[in-house]
Formats: sequence, C-alpha cells, structure tokens
Amino acid sequence: MHRHRSTLGTLLHHVHVSGPLSRAALAERMGVNRSTILALTAELAAAGLVREEHPEGTTGAGRPSLVVRPESGRFHVLAFDVAVDRLVAARVGIGGVILDRRETARPRAGVDLETVVAKLAALGRSLADATSICVGIGASYCGMIRPGDGMVRYGPQMGWVDQAFGAELSRALGLGLPVAVGNEAHLGAVAEFQRGAGVGSPDLIYLHGDVGVGGGILVNGKLLGGEGGYGCEVGHMLVNPVNGRPCLCGSRGCLEAETGEYALLAAAGRADDGMIGREAVRAVVRDAAAGDPRARAAVAAIGDWLGIGVANLINLFNPGVVIFGGMLRDVYAAAAPQVAERIAQHAMPVSRERAKLRLSGLADDATLLGAADLGFAPLLADPLLAAAS
Amino acid sequence: MHRHRSTLGTLLHHVHVSGPLSRAALAERMGVNRSTILALTAELAAAGLVREEHPEGTTGAGRPSLVVRPESGRFHVLAFDVAVDRLVAARVGIGGVILDRRETARPRAGVDLETVVAKLAALGRSLADATSICVGIGASYCGMIRPGDGMVRYGPQMGWVDQAFGAELSRALGLGLPVAVGNEAHLGAVAEFQRGAGVGSPDLIYLHGDVGVGGGILVNGKLLGGEGGYGCEVGHMLVNPVNGRPCLCGSRGCLEAETGEYALLAAAGRADDGMIGREAVRAVVRDAAAGDPRARAAVAAIGDWLGIGVANLINLFNPGVVIFGGMLRDVYAAAAPQVAERIAQHAMPVSRERAKLRLSGLADDATLLGAADLGFAPLLADPLLAAAS
Repeated sequence: MHRHRSTLGTLLHHVHVSGPLSRAALAERMGVNRSTILALTAELAAAGLVREEHPEGTTGAGRPSLVVRPESGRFHVLAFDVAVDRLVAARVGIGGVILDRRETARPRAGVDLETVVAKLAALGRSLADATSICVGIGASYCGMIRPGDGMVRYGPQMGWVDQAFGAELSRALGLGLPVAVGNEAHLGAVAEFQRGAGVGSPDLIYLHGDVGVGGGILVNGKLLGGEGGYGCEVGHMLVNPVNGRPCLCGSRGCLEAETGEYALLAAAGRADDGMIGREAVRAVVRDAAAGDPRARAAVAAIGDWLGIGVANLINLFNPGVVIFGGMLRDVYAAAAPQVAERIAQHAMPVSRERAKLRLSGLADDATLLGAADLGFAPLLADPLLAAAS
Repeated sequence: MHRHRSTLGTLLHHVHVSGPLSRAALAERMGVNRSTILALTAELAAAGLVREEHPEGTTGAGRPSLVVRPESGRFHVLAFDVAVDRLVAARVGIGGVILDRRETARPRAGVDLETVVAKLAALGRSLADATSICVGIGASYCGMIRPGDGMVRYGPQMGWVDQAFGAELSRALGLGLPVAVGNEAHLGAVAEFQRGAGVGSPDLIYLHGDVGVGGGILVNGKLLGGEGGYGCEVGHMLVNPVNGRPCLCGSRGCLEAETGEYALLAAAGRADDGMIGREAVRAVVRDAAAGDPRARAAVAAIGDWLGIGVANLINLFNPGVVIFGGMLRDVYAAAAPQVAERIAQHAMPVSRERAKLRLSGLADDATLLGAADLGFAPLLADPLLAAAS
C-alpha cells in the first residue's frame, strides 16, 4: 500500500513539475507500462488530483492520445514569501499554478516576529476558498533557516535571531497544518531547476538579489546543505578585503555589501534620494542605459564585483548554469559585459567551459513557487492520504 | 550472482576502510545476520582477501569472538603520486597498508608527459613482487583531470594541457590494467574521510598545499564534481582583487598565489635563496617559531589570506571539518591564530558553529592512499572476479 502510494506520488510529481504529459511519456519516465499508468491515473483522477483530456489542438477524431494534466482547482497550498520589500501570500494549485495572490509592502526595519506573522496570516486568510482544500503550507524567508522546524536562525534584514517563525505562522493560520520554511534563494534554486531557467542542469547556482544577496546551490540535483543545513551563504563571501563596504552581518566587503541595492545606490550617488527597493535599482539601470555617466559607472562597478563572485563560484562548483534572480536580474542584464570579463579573467577555462549564465525563468515568482513546493511535499509523498484529509 | 558479489564487496570495503571488525560489528553495519557474515567471510577468506583471527590481546581460551581483518599480502594495487616536488610509487595492500614505496625528486619545470610517465613506470616496475597480484592502479595528479579516462586537462605546475596521462602510464606499465587518475586534493579529501581526520564528517573540505593550493570538497559524503567533474578549484578563488600576486593560471590574487610556497618565501624575503619546496617552507615556519621577525610576519600574512579563503568556504559549504594537508599542515600549524581571526570576522556564526579545523590525519600519504583507493575500486565492486584474474 505504501509503495503504491509513493508510485502515485511519483506520477503526480511528474505532471506537477512538467505539466500535461501523455501516458506514453509518463510510462517512459517512470519505467512502467502504459496499463499501469492507466490504473494510477484513474486513481488520481478519482481523488480529484489529475484529469485526462485531449491535448490542445487535437480534434478528438480517431483515437486521440490523452494527456494527464494536473487538476489545480480542488486542492491548493498556501505559499508565503517574506522578502525584504514585500510580504506575499498565494494560493497555488497542483502544477504550480498561482490561483490567487495578495501582496503588501513591508517596512524596512523594526519589524518583529509577531507583526510579520499577523500580517502574513491576514493575507493567508483573505485567500480562503470554499471550493478548494488546503493540503500544505510553505514559506520563503530572507534569512538562515534551521531545517526541520522553520526556526529563523539569522535574518539580518529584519534583525531576527532564533525566531520560531514556522511554528508561529502555523499557529496564527490555525489550519492545523505545519508551515515548512526555507531560505528564499535555496527555494529559488530548486524552483528554477524544476520549472525555470535551470531545467536539465543539476549543477546549478541561483543568485537572488534584493538588499542582500542570497545563493542557492544545487550539487548533482540536490540543494547543498552542509553539516547543519546552512550552506550556500554566497552573499557573505568576502570579495573586497581591502576597502570593503560594511555589511549587515558585521563584516565588510561581502559580496552582498558590494553588489546589493545599497551599494548600487551609493555608487550612483543616490543613497540619500529617498527612493529604495526594486524601483530605485531599476531607475539606475534605466538611466545607465540612457547614458547617464554616474549611473553607468555604478552599474559597471557593481557588475565588476558580481563578476568576481560568479568567477569564484564557477571555480568552486563547475556549474552548468548560473541564474540571476530578484534584483540581480536587472543588474546582470545591464552589467553582463563586466561579469563576463571577470569570469574570463578569474575562472579556470576548464571550469567555465560549460557554464551558461541566465536570467531567472520564474522572475518574481521563483521564491514563491519554491515555497509552494515545500507545501506540496506531503501531497506528493502520499497523494491519497493528503487528499482524504 | 552479481548481487552476491556486490555484498562480498561491501564486506571487504568495511574491513578495507575500518580495519579488523568483529562479525557482530559487520552484521550491524551491513544489516544482515551473523550467519550471513560467516558465509561471506568464508568465501572472501578462501579467495585470500581476508582472514579471521583472534583479536589482539585475547588468549584464545573460552569462545573468543573472531575478527575479520583484511589480508594484505596476496593482492595489491599500485598507487602513484605526481606531486609538485616528487614522484611517488607504492604497492598498497587491502586495508590501505603501504607495503613498499619508491620516491624520486621531480624537477620543477620542463617535464613532459613522456619523461614523467617513464620515471613513474620505472618506479612501479621496481615494486614488482612475485608473491602478490596487482589488481588495480591509481594515480594522484596535481591538476585538473577529466573523469573517466585520466586525461590531464590542465596541469599548470608542469605546463600540461590535455595530456593523456592515464592511458600513457597504463601502456608504459604494461600490466594490462587501466590507470584511474584523480586530482590530488580530491583524492586527499576522500582518503581523509575514509580513514583520516574527516572520519564521520560527510561535509568536509580538504585543502592541499604545495606550490599550488588544491581543494577537495565532500558534500554529504560525495566529492563535489559539478557539470564536468572539475569542481573544487579552491586555489583559484580570487581573494585579493586589488594587489594580487600573479598566479600560474594567468590571473592574479588567487588563493594559491597568496598562500602557496612562492608567496610565503617572497614574504619572508627568501624568494631567491635557492631553497625551495617543503624544506624551504618548514625553515620559514621554524624561524618564525624561533622569533625571526620577517619569518613571523610572512607566516602571519599568509595565514591571513588563508583565513579569508577558509572563511569563504565555511560560508559556502557549512562544513563539519576543514582539513589542512600537504605544505598547508606546516603553514596552518603556525598561522592558526590568523586563520581563526579571519573566520571570526567573515564567516557567519551559524555557518561556522560546527566547523572543526584539523591537520591532515594521513599526512604525506593522504593523496597516495586516495590514489590507492581508485585502484581498489574494481576489487571492491566484485572481489571474486578481480581476485580470479
């Protein structure tokens, strides 16, 4: 029984990640015959988790090959994203479909656990839908998370140390479900590998920029955890040991101190302009493209440090792809020449020969979809149990 | 049959790595009952691969518990180590016992593939032993190695690019066996994890110093390969982007340029003294300990850069242990305060809280024993086939 349920979960996982698939494609991926797929699909369809239909563009004449597609209307997860500049909540259906979302700006400082949890819970409740059942909850957080219990060990942007975020959010939501929490860049990396710019590249580096710079690194398809689950702290790689800018972590010259939002705004002479966040970053990038010399120099300087960081990562990880997400999408798009130059200077030719550089394929939804997949994990492990609950 | 042989290989692997083990310990490790261990052991003993004996210190009275120990006299591998300053060949028995070894100094430059292979083959032939059968050959090389065929993609110390080292050494030895080649620091990392300072720490970083600095990184017990098998290039992490020393790779300010032998000798004002290699490094460290101010300053400066590199690795990998091998044993032993200070400054507290720093447990044999284990791989995969050949 248990084995059968995990096989059901495997089929559901394939359509959840890849979208509609023919029975033949599923049979090949799972290494079973088509009649097994038929039986599994019937069971999942009866539970309301998938449906079979004619592929788009076919007329239905003759004997059309049916495709199995995720059913996104009956069950959902709640996904939360605690980013530096915003709080997001979404109802996400099987297949990674964002069914509904709410978003609110987040003040930059003085935000305690209780306030953040209350705001998130209110956003979550506003998403309630009588026709669909919540089967899991996931949250993305901009800090270091203890595996297993959603404890925020260190969240410099919000001044959090050892805050029981997952447990408190679960309690505030009152749905009787735990909240699985992950670091935003870790979740972004997994999401890009599953359905974004990193599909097919199990050795993947995802860099997520906002005020800070986070990293999610997959080694042979698995998130690099390390001894305690706190690996991938790319943002605190020391790149400028001589004249480094101060970093929120207490050190100086960290990659995030040299390439984050504050560094860009300072380099552009706009640190005190009052405009912050993504809009401020985009304004610098836009002005640089329009020829503003100071904005151009700022983008080039930030790109230079970013390139050093990426070159180091290429030497260490020999990745198939490096993906730029969050604010770093805008920065990389503008500073690609500086990044390429640093890679050419500092990354070993053998290490860089297969490394592609790409913009995030999931854009602003990368971390949110990663959080949703944390919420879907119990359903994918045992579809019938979760669907029956 | 195949499954049975791989179970035999598993038992042999346990005693090869851990040394003598009781049947009870083997049964527990392998999750089988003692009568199965009895039967497997009998088969391996009949093939000359293990023997059973009374543990040391027992008298044999009563019903003593026998231990299974590796039989190192009947079969061996040839292990080679191509280091910057020496060529080593050894005959290594099951259990990782170095039965015999030959070593020769290697000139620092102008050494082509043919010459190196001829010298290694001569060393290897001098180790021939009529009473023991060679079941595999492994080699450690100070450069980037293509997985699968032992091609040296890049060996800066010897000026090698795309040299078919493994194939040529196999041909020169004429034993009808392939030569499995690995990067020296990769092999050192695996060897330290198996039987050195990293036992029990699956998230492990091994740093190997000679003229260059190499790295071997285990993530959850597996060597970090990356897309093409060229990960772990720790030595070319850029740590000094402002006034970096030139590196053999063509860049400047790489970790190996700032912490390798030449950096230390230059900082100590001894670049042109004529003494090079391990002895020159040890002389600086010795003089620093004796109070020579310039030697002390040199050790401190190198330790400072080494500490930056280690702090970055701790942030990225959240390792359980960082191990210093090769020449870095001497440097780290002398510069531990500088390394500790940089870690305290630049590594995140959560990332460093479980990271231990240790000297290599296998000392000068780490890379050689790693090479031997490459040679043992076929025997451990199928003990009876290899033993019968």
